[in-house]
Amino acid sequence: MENKKVVLAYSGGLDTSYCVKYLKDDKGLEVHSVLVNTGGFTKDELVEVEKRAYELGVKSHTTVEETENYYQSVVKYLIYGNILKNSTYPLSVSAERVSQAIAIAKHAKSLNADYIAHGSTGAGNDQVRFDMIFQSFLPEAEIITPIRDLQLSREEEIAYLKTKGVEMDFEKAAYSINKGLWGTSVGGKETLTSNGYLPESAFPTQVTKDKAEELTLGFENGELKTVNEKRFDKSHEAIQYLETLAGPFGIGRDIHVGDTIIGIKGRVGFEAAAALLTIKAHQALEKHVLTKWQIYWKDQIAAFYGNWLHEGQFMDPVMRDMEAMMDSTQQNVTGKVFMTLLPYRYQVNGIESDHDLMSAKFGHYGEMNKTWSGDDVKGFAKIFGNQNAIYHQVNGDS
Amino acid sequence: MENKKVVLAYSGGLDTSYCVKYLKDDKGLEVHSVLVNTGGFTKDELVEVEKRAYELGVKSHTTVEETENYYQSVVKYLIYGNILKNSTYPLSVSAERVSQAIAIAKHAKSLNADYIAHGSTGAGNDQVRFDMIFQSFLPEAEIITPIRDLQLSREEEIAYLKTKGVEMDFEKAAYSINKGLWGTSVGGKETLTSNGYLPESAFPTQVTKDKAEELTLGFENGELKTVNEKRFDKSHEAIQYLETLAGPFGIGRDIHVGDTIIGIKGRVGFEAAAALLTIKAHQALEKHVLTKWQIYWKDQIAAFYGNWLHEGQFMDPVMRDMEAMMDSTQQNVTGKVFMTLLPYRYQVNGIESDHDLMSAKFGHYGEMNKTWSGDDVKGFAKIFGNQNAIYHQVNGDS
Amino acid sequence: MENKKVVLAYSGGLDTSYCVKYLKDDKGLEVHSVLVNTGGFTKDELVEVEKRAYELGVKSHTTVEETENYYQSVVKYLIYGNILKNSTYPLSVSAERVSQAIAIAKHAKSLNADYIAHGSTGAGNDQVRFDMIFQSFLPEAEIITPIRDLQLSREEEIAYLKTKGVEMDFEKAAYSINKGLWGTSVGGKETLTSNGYLPESAFPTQVTKDKAEELTLGFENGELKTVNEKRFDKSHEAIQYLETLAGPFGIGRDIHVGDTIIGIKGRVGFEAAAALLTIKAHQALEKHVLTKWQIYWKDQIAAFYGNWLHEGQFMDPVMRDMEAMMDSTQQNVTGKVFMTLLPYRYQVNGIESDHDLMSAKFGHYGEMNKTWSGDDVKGFAKIFGNQNAIYHQVNGDS
Amino acid sequence: MENKKVVLAYSGGLDTSYCVKYLKDDKGLEVHSVLVNTGGFTKDELVEVEKRAYELGVKSHTTVEETENYYQSVVKYLIYGNILKNSTYPLSVSAERVSQAIAIAKHAKSLNADYIAHGSTGAGNDQVRFDMIFQSFLPEAEIITPIRDLQLSREEEIAYLKTKGVEMDFEKAAYSINKGLWGTSVGGKETLTSNGYLPESAFPTQVTKDKAEELTLGFENGELKTVNEKRFDKSHEAIQYLETLAGPFGIGRDIHVGDTIIGIKGRVGFEAAAALLTIKAHQALEKHVLTKWQIYWKDQIAAFYGNWLHEGQFMDPVMRDMEAMMDSTQQNVTGKVFMTLLPYRYQVNGIESDHDLMSAKFGHYGEMNKTWSGDDVKGFAKIFGNQNAIYHQVNGDS
Repeated sequence: MENKKVVLAYSGGLDTSYCVKYLKDDKGLEVHSVLVNTGGFTKDELVEVEKRAYELGVKSHTTVEETENYYQSVVKYLIYGNILKNSTYPLSVSAERVSQAIAIAKHAKSLNADYIAHGSTGAGNDQVRFDMIFQSFLPEAEIITPIRDLQLSREEEIAYLKTKGVEMDFEKAAYSINKGLWGTSVGGKETLTSNGYLPESAFPTQVTKDKAEELTLGFENGELKTVNEKRFDKSHEAIQYLETLAGPFGIGRDIHVGDTIIGIKGRVGFEAAAALLTIKAHQALEKHVLTKWQIYWKDQIAAFYGNWLHEGQFMDPVMRDMEAMMDSTQQNVTGKVFMTLLPYRYQVNGIESDHDLMSAKFGHYGEMNKTWSGDDVKGFAKIFGNQNAIYHQVNGDS
Repeated sequence: MENKKVVLAYSGGLDTSYCVKYLKDDKGLEVHSVLVNTGGFTKDELVEVEKRAYELGVKSHTTVEETENYYQSVVKYLIYGNILKNSTYPLSVSAERVSQAIAIAKHAKSLNADYIAHGSTGAGNDQVRFDMIFQSFLPEAEIITPIRDLQLSREEEIAYLKTKGVEMDFEKAAYSINKGLWGTSVGGKETLTSNGYLPESAFPTQVTKDKAEELTLGFENGELKTVNEKRFDKSHEAIQYLETLAGPFGIGRDIHVGDTIIGIKGRVGFEAAAALLTIKAHQALEKHVLTKWQIYWKDQIAAFYGNWLHEGQFMDPVMRDMEAMMDSTQQNVTGKVFMTLLPYRYQVNGIESDHDLMSAKFGHYGEMNKTWSGDDVKGFAKIFGNQNAIYHQVNGDS
Repeated sequence: MENKKVVLAYSGGLDTSYCVKYLKDDKGLEVHSVLVNTGGFTKDELVEVEKRAYELGVKSHTTVEETENYYQSVVKYLIYGNILKNSTYPLSVSAERVSQAIAIAKHAKSLNADYIAHGSTGAGNDQVRFDMIFQSFLPEAEIITPIRDLQLSREEEIAYLKTKGVEMDFEKAAYSINKGLWGTSVGGKETLTSNGYLPESAFPTQVTKDKAEELTLGFENGELKTVNEKRFDKSHEAIQYLETLAGPFGIGRDIHVGDTIIGIKGRVGFEAAAALLTIKAHQALEKHVLTKWQIYWKDQIAAFYGNWLHEGQFMDPVMRDMEAMMDSTQQNVTGKVFMTLLPYRYQVNGIESDHDLMSAKFGHYGEMNKTWSGDDVKGFAKIFGNQNAIYHQVNGDS
Repeated sequence: MENKKVVLAYSGGLDTSYCVKYLKDDKGLEVHSVLVNTGGFTKDELVEVEKRAYELGVKSHTTVEETENYYQSVVKYLIYGNILKNSTYPLSVSAERVSQAIAIAKHAKSLNADYIAHGSTGAGNDQVRFDMIFQSFLPEAEIITPIRDLQLSREEEIAYLKTKGVEMDFEKAAYSINKGLWGTSVGGKETLTSNGYLPESAFPTQVTKDKAEELTLGFENGELKTVNEKRFDKSHEAIQYLETLAGPFGIGRDIHVGDTIIGIKGRVGFEAAAALLTIKAHQALEKHVLTKWQIYWKDQIAAFYGNWLHEGQFMDPVMRDMEAMMDSTQQNVTGKVFMTLLPYRYQVNGIESDHDLMSAKFGHYGEMNKTWSGDDVKGFAKIFGNQNAIYHQVNGDS
């Protein structure tokens, strides 16, 4: 009789290494590990992870190259929506975890897996994201979460793996790093309490540039397509190229304070130069080409979209509805944005677009023009303020 | 027979100087000039303006010291709402214009004025703000706007004043500056088109500090009360003190791109160190003490409140309703915020508050704790994702 | 030399009859009248209006049959959004006026008209709708509004027409009626003050049915396609058929109290049986097939969409963005709705849909089922209420 | 040694009777039962319930008369917000369950209870509401839910009680009824599937009136204070009186389709004459006295407030913030509303209020007046539509 199949979300770290052994030896399952790359792994790292997986005894290991799909289905909308959670954080981790979970679920489906497993603990956001995506895609498959279920400590996992003869680097890093297309999170020490900024050394990308550089970003229907006039067919490659230019300036670093899905507050540091610059450039362009209420409503929609994505609710069809709205808003978001990069900061200098509503043709702000008169504005103010004038007369309170 | 009375919003500049002469000589009115200080004038400047007014022939000139009232009725809510229009602009000018218009209207009411006048042209936002506030407060008084009505050019105004023997500095400044408690706007040259940043020299406050300084801001129920442990009874004085500390770092400079009330787009530069730091510190504190949905809803309300204020609709009672909501949210926004000031930028390092919901007592993010278990989260994810799981099963699309 | 051309929005009534004569005789323009039918005119009436137009001396008269286009571009979204302004009014007039204005503007464009005219007074909503649509479509054409500009009274118009030898029924009806696809408005007498309901006789459709009738409405992707199993290719025909069935029950009558665009409040009676039933049936179906947040967000979007349409801002591209979102929500709004019609009221009995999320498969409310356990809900409640529990412990206030 | 104390939410029904015996005999706890009356029990019923409790062996039984407090803390805001969930349901049960849970938690706190228990099953909304309120108020007390934990069927409960010698009416009613101040819910048979209306006999209040009656409701600052000129000091008494007048008309009946907290859809019938009439009258008055944006924003806030209350999140401080906003909006909601009651329906005829913004003084809709001119509106339309006109010219798409 064949063993039952489990598909395991595998990263090569301690927790998921434990899971391989536990699922195989203690549970007697056929383990199929899968790693979804959303821009955080180099080719060499992917080869290394695969090697480790087979050494641990998986039946198959699969690397899903998901970066472009991740861009198309999630990152694109974070740009359209100019989404910075709590005015700060580009949702670097939340966004990619959802994308990874979907790719894993699809892989599990294609393998007709009986079980699907992840190595999350019971203390963070990721468990909820994995659980919810998995149960939407694979309602029939049971979800196994050994670390959460057994409430294992780091030390217990290490002890178990040693008894199995597994050798790996068991040392705990000072900071926990998570790297992806849309930014790198940095957690640990200072972020565990409410006060204290991360030291320079904690950031993976060190600041090596100290002279101003000009930067021109080109957008087509809301998507980043050129960086300093260099054209990229795939926007995710434009983002990656921008990161190489801007990362060494130390741009896009901060600490995010936010609400976890499970109700507690948490802080996490991050560096996300490309994400921050792309969003701020995109937003500058939008200020010129969208109408007042387009800007207002896109902001409202995006605030919810970002929160709901963060909470792992990507499969709610309301997300598709909001994406349809955001798609519609990007029709004229085409043009160039001119910026200056400086150490730890940047400047948005201006934009150029065929769709620019700040057109000289219709007059400069503060100067008279031909399409309307002072009398028109007089009438406008009269009517625009009419209800309030009536209100205060009726109620006699001003 | 007595002449009819007109109250004139007077700043001492070209436009309002013209208005004094025109209203007195051409219209035969008794002119009562009024200047409302919302933090932008020094005592010497106020004396000088008063002197000029009497030289021009006003019957009376009044200086209304409105800074604290401006803070209490408007600025406070811009802080509570963390309001940066289009994610950038603290509404420096919009906010004070409304406050000035109200003070002028009240003054006109107290004088039983027959007319109320302002020197706005037909091309900007201020005309609408003045008109609407005036018609709410003084529906019976006619509004006179000579510059707008006569469509006067700068040159025509100068020529007229010269025929009246008026001597003043008729030279036009390279940039138009508007200074107030909540920031200083800088318009001209580069801001008249869609591209180009302001040169250093255009900013009134020059950057003279080049070493990092620590800054601690203390809030009580949302209001800034201490700066580096120095206590201010009046928050507007704390803001002014903070400006002296942070202004020389060149913090809080940017260019705002926005929608004017009259439908065109415009750009305006600004420097607003105290406004930016106060808002960002306040927001950081709120992230620790407010619940997720308090943050969400305050953002929604504040976005509208800021836009509506900008458009001069301060007298709409919906603004009072939103203020009541914002007041309620500030109950626990008490604590300290730790920041570092650096040339052209700043860092939020963390906070300290008795109301901090990121309390070690309830567990750190990512670490297990005693108030809930992994099983609880498992159940949570099951139910939290239940509707989406059902949706995708019913519709067979995942 | 040729006379200049004016396109006139013409309805055959007193105001627009005046306009024909005035534009032709007093202004020396070549008058091209146009009537846009959005479901309110019978063929005979259209022929009669055309005849009158030529008698008055128009150069050309055009009837634009716009009902299907009106449905496709506006009414459809009023259904998708379940839009009842102030919880009451299906926007019968607002919606069609916008549609008519667009058709007229397009007609004027095709004729290269120099002017475009409408017969609105200066006291209502329609003038704003016509003006704004016309200036969006034909910025180069001047808008002429004789009745508004000359501030003519009814009596003055009649006197003028009589001098021109025009004979028509000059008697003023007790109630002003406006009939279209999406309902009929009834204004006058009782609606001019804040109190008083319309008498039976004021409603154009009299109540002739007194026995309950069953009604089944079939929707496909949000559009009404069958009425009692009778299929209509064009949804606007389904609506018209439904009106013939339900109108004689006196369903969908009420008085709407609302804000005019110009800031005053107004009341208007209406009868709109088909509109009300279509919306209520559509909404009942949506409650079964949409997720909680789809319903929530569609409501938010629709509230603004309805108000903005009412205010004549249909050309704002934000309306297209919202339509894109609403389109996306209708993917699964397919099924049947069972209702009972009764004199002056109706009952929604239930629905049937392949997309019904209230599926027996996933358990009935209040009864245990297999897809989750009481323990899951226990965990859910623990985590769902976690932040509030922390909040109250930290702040010690409960 | 003393037994540990448990406070039990007790209603006298099968589930909570089981709980008394189980907690006392099987768990060895000292049982303190509590019933919170929110308007659904008569004095006789309360006496009867108390008697049963002691017979079952409780150490103490307490009746908390909570109706006025329920009105003040919850119902009042449902009126202010005109809250009908999914445009239909006055939240009759959701609202009172929250109020009951709070009263029980306070009672448990005053008794220093070690445990707090409720008889909810694992299939409905109430378990979540009780759990969340209890954990906010009494984080230290363990929550016991015997029926949910033991997954007991009705038959098992009966068998257990019979072994304990308990005698009560074990017959299951055809419909499950829940009566309170804000309406009565009716669940069973037809409501368990997606189609089918409740029969007349299922509604507790039978229709006995067949002639029209006039009704005048008087509001003061948003609160119902007079019914047909009869004055009530306590608004909840006005509501109860109104119910006696309107209930026999069969007004306010319908079936609500909605999302449960646990993710499934459910239907429930209800009759709530007083709730529906109070809300509709209140809303009619508001349409006359609030500004356009007050109405808009109150609707937005109320939609969330209603949903969040329904989901048991009453303890979220965002609810207090929203209440502060709603309180502010009610300042001028004072006046009379004139209605007609008819079998199964009602008519809102109009209102009378000192704060009515539809004041003849400012002109009737559609008729010219003195406070503004047609020229003002012309200017208004020009500017109000300016951005869209520019947009379409820049983008050349109309």
